[in-house]
Amino acid sequence: MVSPEASHFQSSPMAKYAGARTRPVFCFSDVVLFLGGAFMSLILVWSFFSFSSISPNLSFSAVKTDESTKCSRGIDMRYDPTDPVFYDDPDLSYTIEKPVKGWDEKRRRWLELHPSFIPGSENRTVMITGSQSGPCKNPIGDHLLLRFFKNKVDYCRIHGHDIFYSNALLHPKMNSYWAKLPAVKAAMIAHPEAEWIWWVDSDALFTDMDFTPPFRRYRNHNLVVHGWPGVVYNDRSWTALNAGVFLIRNCQWSMELIDTWTNMGPVSPEYAKWGQIQRSIFKDKLFPESDDQTALIYLLFKHREEYYPKIYLEGEYYFEGYWLEIVPGLANVTDRYLEMEREDATLRRRHAEKVSERYGAFREERFLRGERGGKGSLRRPFVTHFTGCQPCSGDHNKMYDGDTCWNGMIKAINFADNQVMRRYGFVHSDLGKTSPLQPVPFDYPDEPW
Amino acid sequence: MVSPEASHFQSSPMAKYAGARTRPVFCFSDVVLFLGGAFMSLILVWSFFSFSSISPNLSFSAVKTDESTKCSRGIDMRYDPTDPVFYDDPDLSYTIEKPVKGWDEKRRRWLELHPSFIPGSENRTVMITGSQSGPCKNPIGDHLLLRFFKNKVDYCRIHGHDIFYSNALLHPKMNSYWAKLPAVKAAMIAHPEAEWIWWVDSDALFTDMDFTPPFRRYRNHNLVVHGWPGVVYNDRSWTALNAGVFLIRNCQWSMELIDTWTNMGPVSPEYAKWGQIQRSIFKDKLFPESDDQTALIYLLFKHREEYYPKIYLEGEYYFEGYWLEIVPGLANVTDRYLEMEREDATLRRRHAEKVSERYGAFREERFLRGERGGKGSLRRPFVTHFTGCQPCSGDHNKMYDGDTCWNGMIKAINFADNQVMRRYGFVHSDLGKTSPLQPVPFDYPDEPW
Repeated sequence: MVSPEASHFQSSPMAKYAGARTRPVFCFSDVVLFLGGAFMSLILVWSFFSFSSISPNLSFSAVKTDESTKCSRGIDMRYDPTDPVFYDDPDLSYTIEKPVKGWDEKRRRWLELHPSFIPGSENRTVMITGSQSGPCKNPIGDHLLLRFFKNKVDYCRIHGHDIFYSNALLHPKMNSYWAKLPAVKAAMIAHPEAEWIWWVDSDALFTDMDFTPPFRRYRNHNLVVHGWPGVVYNDRSWTALNAGVFLIRNCQWSMELIDTWTNMGPVSPEYAKWGQIQRSIFKDKLFPESDDQTALIYLLFKHREEYYPKIYLEGEYYFEGYWLEIVPGLANVTDRYLEMEREDATLRRRHAEKVSERYGAFREERFLRGERGGKGSLRRPFVTHFTGCQPCSGDHNKMYDGDTCWNGMIKAINFADNQVMRRYGFVHSDLGKTSPLQPVPFDYPDEPW
Repeated sequence: MVSPEASHFQSSPMAKYAGARTRPVFCFSDVVLFLGGAFMSLILVWSFFSFSSISPNLSFSAVKTDESTKCSRGIDMRYDPTDPVFYDDPDLSYTIEKPVKGWDEKRRRWLELHPSFIPGSENRTVMITGSQSGPCKNPIGDHLLLRFFKNKVDYCRIHGHDIFYSNALLHPKMNSYWAKLPAVKAAMIAHPEAEWIWWVDSDALFTDMDFTPPFRRYRNHNLVVHGWPGVVYNDRSWTALNAGVFLIRNCQWSMELIDTWTNMGPVSPEYAKWGQIQRSIFKDKLFPESDDQTALIYLLFKHREEYYPKIYLEGEYYFEGYWLEIVPGLANVTDRYLEMEREDATLRRRHAEKVSERYGAFREERFLRGERGGKGSLRRPFVTHFTGCQPCSGDHNKMYDGDTCWNGMIKAINFADNQVMRRYGFVHSDLGKTSPLQPVPFDYPDEPW
């Protein structure tokens, strides 16, 4: 009898397209070399048009275009030439059941036909998050989800990312923690302009609104998760990484990973066996069903040579961090950052929200250069993850009572919101209190409150 | 004794800065004429830098910049020169209590110092919405608010607008329907790159994800609301316009309007009297307290020559529309749009979400050119407003039962979501059912389901 593993890898498209996997990932410079001249002339055309009221739309000049939506992003949202692309291929499907082949070429071709999307495509990121389609069982669950979502929208606005909220299953069997995979695959196809898809669980929030992930560090990797190689390969724990937050490169390797990953999930005829296999290797796994996190650790553990070179286990900062480790320290972090602001007037300077990255970059350079984050650090935690709290169902880990979770969430959300609202002239003077806000004095915190 | 009206206008900054009001509104072309040469050279510098890996950051080259966030929007989010701007003025306040003076010059100066924000500034829009800071009384209230917010985020992603969710009071007295004014003012100051601030109530949603407001039509106006002059000036009704959705130009005129408007609200010593005045003129007003909507109608009615020329009462389409008028017709609208898609293959073509505007523009040109929207039209309603439903408190108008509201909302939300999810390969086959979604067949709806 064929073992689930074997049959799993037989059923995987990876064997067939091994070539694609070893090929270097979709590369910005290729396209640029190929299109340099064309794009240069295009940008010249633009810079001309932006001084006139003539529509710069090249494909559709009959229709009046709206300058605001087009130019404000430097991309032409109204240009889609009729040249055939993967969208015109009847065999290409957004669904999780059908593998996508030759995705790198397909994406490159699309980008070549949409040159206005080339600048910035190197690390352009679309964030995906989501939750269940109906009301939460926990009476304050949806209120918390709303605030978690607002926090992500704030982060994306400050850094120029698009964000998509998924609240419906794309496959009836791929539910709970498996629901993210169909959503991520569909987003990869719907966003060929994006190099990265950033999945962030609904119960995770950004607690450093200035920080930007070190994309350079990930340039040779296709998946970034918070994790520790030693715990994967020595301790064999199902918590060796956290699959609730990940950056996945929009490329063929990722398409194939998602297929392989999905084949350990509820859609697989071998689903039950995968649960047994996971528990047999990762003894601390709490429940019998195969889950997406243990499945990913399994791939790293069992097929190290194949996956480890492309999966970056980020442990140098809180790519996502355990809330119980973080929340008690927020007061000290606040004090330290206020100290930086007292020390350097540049950090006290009021500014347009849109140029906030300039001040974040300055703080990194002046005060945080080379400083690791994570446990015990006074660096703002980048992402705080309320693992075990289950805000929507309310079925939180019995280790702590619900109020510890809900109060911790409000505190962390307001800690993050203070970084946002400063740019609107206000702050929460008490992290436990959401409203009303207090106006920020000019030159705060140098000038006493 | 000074009448509240008189004292109101004495206390208004408008008298003092009448000059500012009559001055033509902040104009894109002024800046362009002034900066044409400078910007042209800058864009040339950019187009060069975008082909190299050298940091194009002019102000802060010591710090590595993240190409993705900078280039992807064609704006430099890391450039903020040290030249003094209004943010450096200790007397400039974000709060509703203190008037802002000379805003047009201040904004123009900021834009001159941030030339990368000039292209697209003509109609660049930031959307603001929000709700109360705590959980809703209605058990499904927060779930509905979450879905209403997702809908706005979807619309903004498709059209390249930023969006900000306000869930805390910026002034303790400015609550409920008055809370929007401090939020809008703070957003105007935090977003000098934006020409328009678009307030949209939490219980309003976009039911045409393709439609873009006809900004050209509003070029000589500073405020756009859904309303009817005849009802303001003849019928004298407090429903002559709806203040739950408005576009307000980020200019000095608007700053002064907000001051004047606010002076009829809870912060005013004359608050009680304003309620009486409003009821004495607008007999159908339901409650004694002064409200923001009647206050705005009052300004149009009482000071017509001053406000009517600058306030566009949009009645040609559902700038916002009453849900009871809209929801029963959604099935017919769906059929009509499917018919268009059967008729023209361009509308059936799958495409990247980012270029959706090209197809929306095509549909306008091919099938909807010059067609009015609004009551009785089979044009998709642009914004459906669940006035009277009170999703959060649950205290809906007794004219209809709650389920009519909640079911109508789910139906309208899924109607809108179908326009979004098509670009991710899925649809709700039944508007009453949120999840799971159904995969869309290739060439749908030409190919039978």
